[in-house]
Amino acid sequence: MKNSQINMMNNFINTGKNSVLKSRIGRKSLHRKIVNDLDDIIPLFQNGQYLGWSGFAGTNYPKVIPIALANHVEQNELQGKMKFNLFVGASTGQETEDRWAALDMISRRYPHQVGKNIQKGINSGRIKFADGHLSTFANDITYGYYTMNKPKGGNSMDIVIIEATEITEQGWIIPGASVGIAPELIQMADKIIVELNTSMPSYRGVHDIVSIDQPPHTKPFQITRVDDRIGYPAIPCDPEKIVAIIESQLPDSTPASVPADAVSKSIANHIVEFLKREISKGFLPKNLLPLQSGIGNIANAVIGGIHNGPFDNINVWTEVIQDTFLDFFESGKLNFASTTSIRFSQSGFNRLFNNWKSYSTKFVLRNQSISNSAEMIRRLGVISMNTPVEFDIYGHANSTCVAGSRMLNGIGGSGEFNRNSKLAIMHAPSVRPSKTDPLGVSTIVPFCTHVDHTEHDVDIYVTEQGLADLRGLSPTERAVSIIENCAHPVYKPILMDYFKSSQEICLKNGSAHEPHQIDKCFKMHTNLNEKGTMRIDSW
Amino acid sequence: MKNSQINMMNNFINTGKNSVLKSRIGRKSLHRKIVNDLDDIIPLFQNGQYLGWSGFAGTNYPKVIPIALANHVEQNELQGKMKFNLFVGASTGQETEDRWAALDMISRRYPHQVGKNIQKGINSGRIKFADGHLSTFANDITYGYYTMNKPKGGNSMDIVIIEATEITEQGWIIPGASVGIAPELIQMADKIIVELNTSMPSYRGVHDIVSIDQPPHTKPFQITRVDDRIGYPAIPCDPEKIVAIIESQLPDSTPASVPADAVSKSIANHIVEFLKREISKGFLPKNLLPLQSGIGNIANAVIGGIHNGPFDNINVWTEVIQDTFLDFFESGKLNFASTTSIRFSQSGFNRLFNNWKSYSTKFVLRNQSISNSAEMIRRLGVISMNTPVEFDIYGHANSTCVAGSRMLNGIGGSGEFNRNSKLAIMHAPSVRPSKTDPLGVSTIVPFCTHVDHTEHDVDIYVTEQGLADLRGLSPTERAVSIIENCAHPVYKPILMDYFKSSQEICLKNGSAHEPHQIDKCFKMHTNLNEKGTMRIDSW
Repeated sequence: MKNSQINMMNNFINTGKNSVLKSRIGRKSLHRKIVNDLDDIIPLFQNGQYLGWSGFAGTNYPKVIPIALANHVEQNELQGKMKFNLFVGASTGQETEDRWAALDMISRRYPHQVGKNIQKGINSGRIKFADGHLSTFANDITYGYYTMNKPKGGNSMDIVIIEATEITEQGWIIPGASVGIAPELIQMADKIIVELNTSMPSYRGVHDIVSIDQPPHTKPFQITRVDDRIGYPAIPCDPEKIVAIIESQLPDSTPASVPADAVSKSIANHIVEFLKREISKGFLPKNLLPLQSGIGNIANAVIGGIHNGPFDNINVWTEVIQDTFLDFFESGKLNFASTTSIRFSQSGFNRLFNNWKSYSTKFVLRNQSISNSAEMIRRLGVISMNTPVEFDIYGHANSTCVAGSRMLNGIGGSGEFNRNSKLAIMHAPSVRPSKTDPLGVSTIVPFCTHVDHTEHDVDIYVTEQGLADLRGLSPTERAVSIIENCAHPVYKPILMDYFKSSQEICLKNGSAHEPHQIDKCFKMHTNLNEKGTMRIDSW
Repeated sequence: MKNSQINMMNNFINTGKNSVLKSRIGRKSLHRKIVNDLDDIIPLFQNGQYLGWSGFAGTNYPKVIPIALANHVEQNELQGKMKFNLFVGASTGQETEDRWAALDMISRRYPHQVGKNIQKGINSGRIKFADGHLSTFANDITYGYYTMNKPKGGNSMDIVIIEATEITEQGWIIPGASVGIAPELIQMADKIIVELNTSMPSYRGVHDIVSIDQPPHTKPFQITRVDDRIGYPAIPCDPEKIVAIIESQLPDSTPASVPADAVSKSIANHIVEFLKREISKGFLPKNLLPLQSGIGNIANAVIGGIHNGPFDNINVWTEVIQDTFLDFFESGKLNFASTTSIRFSQSGFNRLFNNWKSYSTKFVLRNQSISNSAEMIRRLGVISMNTPVEFDIYGHANSTCVAGSRMLNGIGGSGEFNRNSKLAIMHAPSVRPSKTDPLGVSTIVPFCTHVDHTEHDVDIYVTEQGLADLRGLSPTERAVSIIENCAHPVYKPILMDYFKSSQEICLKNGSAHEPHQIDKCFKMHTNLNEKGTMRIDSW
């Protein structure tokens, strides 16, 4: 089984000769669990197992063992013969889950993913995938909802692989840049393997880990401010479950931060102006309310815009913070940030590590079952900002399935934040290019081809064209506001035509609450399919 | 302005000559607010005002004044000239809001309603309506989201009319059979009119009223059991806002309870068998977890079925309890019920009043902002059961808009319970009759014409055909389970054909995560429109 690629990985994990590694393992009895030869670990893994990994939004996921397993499968031509059911809080890195997908090593993967190969596997029916709300998922996995059909039974994960930055005197685990569902996975693991990453500082002190009880024994989260702490600084862990500890020095493969483009800047500007108006009307305090912001360039630009705006003493309650938050740390405009993941670029992480002493007092990393909980989002009155694939004239949004069928990444936390925030904002460019038409795809459509967020959930839609404030409006009022404020000029008359003609028809048959023509509502989409553009000639 | 109908109402409210009335008003200084002539009240109401009423699910809504106003409009031919923006926690009675709708007295009505005339008004575009989650709505109204576009400004309700059963020594209000958003409305009222209903006992002692603070000053709901109390037994009220108190002896016009039919019984049976299996697997405790059940005959039958099943010491966390809960009170199988409304039939209310001393210790009435809060539903691990209009093969459900456009009643609490319950069950007959075909309308469709509940929210679908347990399944697995277990035999091949052909097409173009044909997905609906049945000849 030994092969050159595993040798290479072995060289990698042996460089420190364990002295640094041991200094990070407070519980001495665990030193004997240190493994230096990956060949000793590979045989633990068998086709059909249920695996849990730490990780969220591409940080703090295990790397050494997933890469070694991929090498093993490749070397021994085991593609399709060594497949796993893989559960992670959210996405991991390209070099792990996406490579596994390319090597046909994944039979089932819940509840979120990123990567071309894994998407291809999902959309070709090879990988069973279901996306889900991230906080609910964290609860449901402990209820046994994802292991109840496990052939050999038992509400457990066969092997859980956790990236840690330290192990405490009690044998508890201090993760790195994310928490995700690591506490839940550790709780339901048969065996635990720890990848202790010595290439980064120990994150001791920045986590607030809560063991979530199950109904009827659950308790309120006693948090009323973003900086309240109610848990432990490490993940409780039965040390007897730990079967191996290996050293890792592989960094998270996060992408570089991309500068904001004109469209993102324009969206950010609309949002900043709106927030200023809300403050002046007395609807928001001067330091706003805790902010949540999704992943991506628009989100990054919006946070940059808010940073440059007239706001101070900002609080953040979110699931992931990106590079522009570092400016908040630096300028002192941030009071405190609560998140379940830090997803900085490599240069961003360097900036964090170089200022560790001051920046690490400015944030806390929590279980995703708390960062994304309806309870906390509603209590704190979060202002949330997320990007959909498309949204419709009545205010429904699609975050996941292109043309109703092709999965992108999954709903992530957008549903939890949209529904429970005091102000739920969704932002997107009004148009995207198709292969043949630079304005070929309108983000605003008559009817979403997949609904992840209902008309009951989103307060504000923003594009570079403008902002539609839907609060208190009826569906037909929303349609006018969305089309007039958000649609691209090329699509305004097309969408208004659909709305007006639907209204006329539905008024005749007494069904004009939310006027539609269900025989035509997807015509822009089918036109895109057939002619490469949503610019239809007529309805 | 005086007219014969108002005279009749005056006779009605004067019968007690105020002695009983006064005995129910603990705060003596409020006795001078007693009004015996409705003519003194009518002039307070003016076209365009923002009105709030107490009431939820057709109980504890004001009756005397709404009826007097309707009489006034009818008598003086003011139809369309005296219109109001009307906000109530949920629905009221036919003789009030529905009559107002018939008289064109409603310009805007949020967030839920019941009645043929009000539905007609909404679907003819005459009444602006938007449905919303009931707990969120209760918060949003205090945020000012429903009054922000009020022409004369100010985050207030011009007049709030509350049905009470007593006023305390402090001048606080004890409502009757529901709480709804009465506390929020009283808090944001310019003027308050109390209809004190002396035809029923005082409900003193059964309410737990919480004043909800706004972010960033909100607090956890310190409730971990259905019978925990964290509030006041009455609604705090500034007595200076009370401009009038009138006596009412009108009962709530709740409908009679309908005996369960074969379909409902079969659905109930599938659910009871499922719950028994969950207990035997250790997924549920022997006394289950707190139950929520929607309104309607299926819900009533299911609660009856659970009552007759092998369950004991049952807890209930719901928004409304119906007649079959009285059997639970009587048999002693109920530990405790928390709700925001009791919606008994007339005979059911008599049964309650006749056993007041024992039954009234078995339940608590809470704000709908708490009964329906995501925080509480998730914490308690509720088992929820609600009826959709239709659901699709991948697990989305439509609760509100027939054929995408025609509003029925609104989403009510179904979204809050579906998303946050530990076990979210939706139940419906597999088919309903069309005008020409007794099996003309399939409840299971390829694609919901309106999505209120996403595939991420519902765990179990049940029809009289069987039960589909979707927990942990991917979309294509869900489709097979739903079609095989829930669809009517007549529609099974039609739906399976859609699924299989969609899968074949989507596999070819790499979009088979949730296979659809968006040019065909509503064909069963358009066929129903054109030919009176969803039984299509071919896809």
